Amino acid sequence: MVSEKMLGLGSRRSCIRELFEFGRQRAEIVGRENIFDFSIGNPSTPAPEEVKKAAIEILETESSDAIHGYTSASGNDQTRDAIASSLNRRFGMDFTRKNLFITCGAAPALTATLKALTYSPECEYIAIAPFFPEYRCFVEVSGGKLVVVPADTDKFQIDFDELKKAINKNTQAVIINSPNNPSGVVYTEDTIKKLSDILRAKSEELGHPVFIIADEPYRELVYGGVDVPYIPKFYNNTIICYSYSKSLSLPGERIGYVLVPNSVDDFTSIYNAVMGGARGLGHVCAPSLMQKIIGKCVDVKPDLTVYERNRNLLYDSLTKMGYKCAKPDGAFYLFMEAPGGDAAAFSEKAKTLDLLIVPGADFGCPGHIRISYCVPTDRIERALPLFEKLIKM
Amino acid sequence: MVSEKMLGLGSRRSCIRELFEFGRQRAEIVGRENIFDFSIGNPSTPAPEEVKKAAIEILETESSDAIHGYTSASGNDQTRDAIASSLNRRFGMDFTRKNLFITCGAAPALTATLKALTYSPECEYIAIAPFFPEYRCFVEVSGGKLVVVPADTDKFQIDFDELKKAINKNTQAVIINSPNNPSGVVYTEDTIKKLSDILRAKSEELGHPVFIIADEPYRELVYGGVDVPYIPKFYNNTIICYSYSKSLSLPGERIGYVLVPNSVDDFTSIYNAVMGGARGLGHVCAPSLMQKIIGKCVDVKPDLTVYERNRNLLYDSLTKMGYKCAKPDGAFYLFMEAPGGDAAAFSEKAKTLDLLIVPGADFGCPGHIRISYCVPTDRIERALPLFEKLIKM
Repeated sequence: MVSEKMLGLGSRRSCIRELFEFGRQRAEIVGRENIFDFSIGNPSTPAPEEVKKAAIEILETESSDAIHGYTSASGNDQTRDAIASSLNRRFGMDFTRKNLFITCGAAPALTATLKALTYSPECEYIAIAPFFPEYRCFVEVSGGKLVVVPADTDKFQIDFDELKKAINKNTQAVIINSPNNPSGVVYTEDTIKKLSDILRAKSEELGHPVFIIADEPYRELVYGGVDVPYIPKFYNNTIICYSYSKSLSLPGERIGYVLVPNSVDDFTSIYNAVMGGARGLGHVCAPSLMQKIIGKCVDVKPDLTVYERNRNLLYDSLTKMGYKCAKPDGAFYLFMEAPGGDAAAFSEKAKTLDLLIVPGADFGCPGHIRISYCVPTDRIERALPLFEKLIKM
Repeated sequence: MVSEKMLGLGSRRSCIRELFEFGRQRAEIVGRENIFDFSIGNPSTPAPEEVKKAAIEILETESSDAIHGYTSASGNDQTRDAIASSLNRRFGMDFTRKNLFITCGAAPALTATLKALTYSPECEYIAIAPFFPEYRCFVEVSGGKLVVVPADTDKFQIDFDELKKAINKNTQAVIINSPNNPSGVVYTEDTIKKLSDILRAKSEELGHPVFIIADEPYRELVYGGVDVPYIPKFYNNTIICYSYSKSLSLPGERIGYVLVPNSVDDFTSIYNAVMGGARGLGHVCAPSLMQKIIGKCVDVKPDLTVYERNRNLLYDSLTKMGYKCAKPDGAFYLFMEAPGGDAAAFSEKAKTLDLLIVPGADFGCPGHIRISYCVPTDRIERALPLFEKLIKM
């Protein structure tokens, strides 16, 4: 007498969590230092010092009601003003607080947006492989259907022929995630322009907008000065789902936003429907102290030193060993071809060395392996001989 | 091209929020002190000093990762242990962390539970009038149907004849809320026993459990030593949705839990389905710093002095003036008969005096008026002449 669907979602761990749990149990037997866990995307750099400073200052100077009281469902006005100003400065936009809806992180930003846009069980959302596996769960629980566009396994940009084939009258949105989890690849300006052209033409042809839902928790995590195009500059019907989880190393705090630009068709309806979707899912407001902290830290930059060093070390070493991999410019993942082609088998083989790397099937790429490098650098250094051994096994 | 349902939920404010917004606008014209706002249930007492102390201590002594990292979806182990121990001490139960799932407040505790239990669009949930209006939204968005049992307008306990009539093969649960919003009434032990007997008999007859979903954000807010029966002691198939919003005056922080006792039929499936429901709605974990704070404050008691003084002043004064009202023993609401019988009209009349009180239609009692007394006492003192005037208008 329960929902089988929810029971399934609650009973079956993702393969990422499976590996992570396996690692925890093995660690008790062989010792923590002998487990080479590259499974999970938990930021390894601490939150910037400004976060702690802001938190203590707010707690010590403001009233309980101002800190801990309800904010409006959309979020604290000052925080939304600060976020809008920061985006305007960085990207030359003209956002105001009215474009922002603060959420408990990117996951409920996505579920509220999907709930808002799903007007019938026929509604379809396109994910471009490789993609974050939770998209499937979010789309299906919102009542829609996930359609997967196969990966461009060469450069992990977008296979536009496949994309065009996937769009039909039921397509509500294309979900993109750049910098990408799991590939670490950043969509180039050229990719975004082509995507925008195609979606504009398709929207025209279908007589209704095909939205871009840009899931951007990794926007600030890029290396070597690579530019991450700001999608609303290229495509009017873009809705952004953002999170401070990775950029400020606050994954447990659940703070992010939905941004609906004025340029979105029927802006007021879309914004209000996102609000309604969030309300129906149990959103009252985002955590109020954390909203205030974000208001004071919108321009704080993450320290990327370790991630960049890890990226370089891992990419250079693995490619030298003979592994094949598109160079990751952002996020903290590297997505390589599984030697032999069967990533599940390769991941199992790696487990025998206590090397935990995630097979790509759930990301829509069953021949690839994800390595999370948001770990202490010495773990990579000590794991390199194992990767060397593994490719010869 | 959006969900009309979500658009409606996002566009139409609740009548509580409407009144609250009206008050904000009027305040700009006539001055804040001339608005007698009794519309909203925002705790007026500050969070206990222990909360601030715990927050600063955690921020100053623990690592960033320990404070702000992901917890498991179910919540921080130590916090769940602390909550379980506290409940065991207070109510003689034998809960462990495995019975607890920490959420972003009571609203998502309810939506996750409803999502878990709703296995078909035929599933029905019974609310007993008067009831918190968001139940309708939560049940409908979860995919089920809300069935309302008319109020026992005499004592605001339960009209059991009406309840029996409302239960059928599709009934999944009865949602109860004691201390009650909006009546302030606490269900007596006698009420809970009768309710349990009926639900046991009906479960037997129907061949499936009819759950109690106990929404308990006001459990700690009772006056004059009144006892709030602990429902799992009386009925095995009870699921509790709790929040620290009111008890610790942390409404904006979004922290609460779902408690599934071992006594619930098919405990593992229910707990896992709640987890799956939460996941599908975008839950990753509850705010991590706040989880740690709660872990240190589980036994902190709220200061009820002001609420109790307000309750006494308002109840005694209004009944003396001739208003009719069941005595509220808990929460911070008083629910009186609208003189003349039309609460909407009465609320409009009150608005002409800048007295903001909420008509009962959305609570399932169109002849009653809700007064929130979580306000500074002087607001009540200054409003009493207006209530006196109003009953004669």
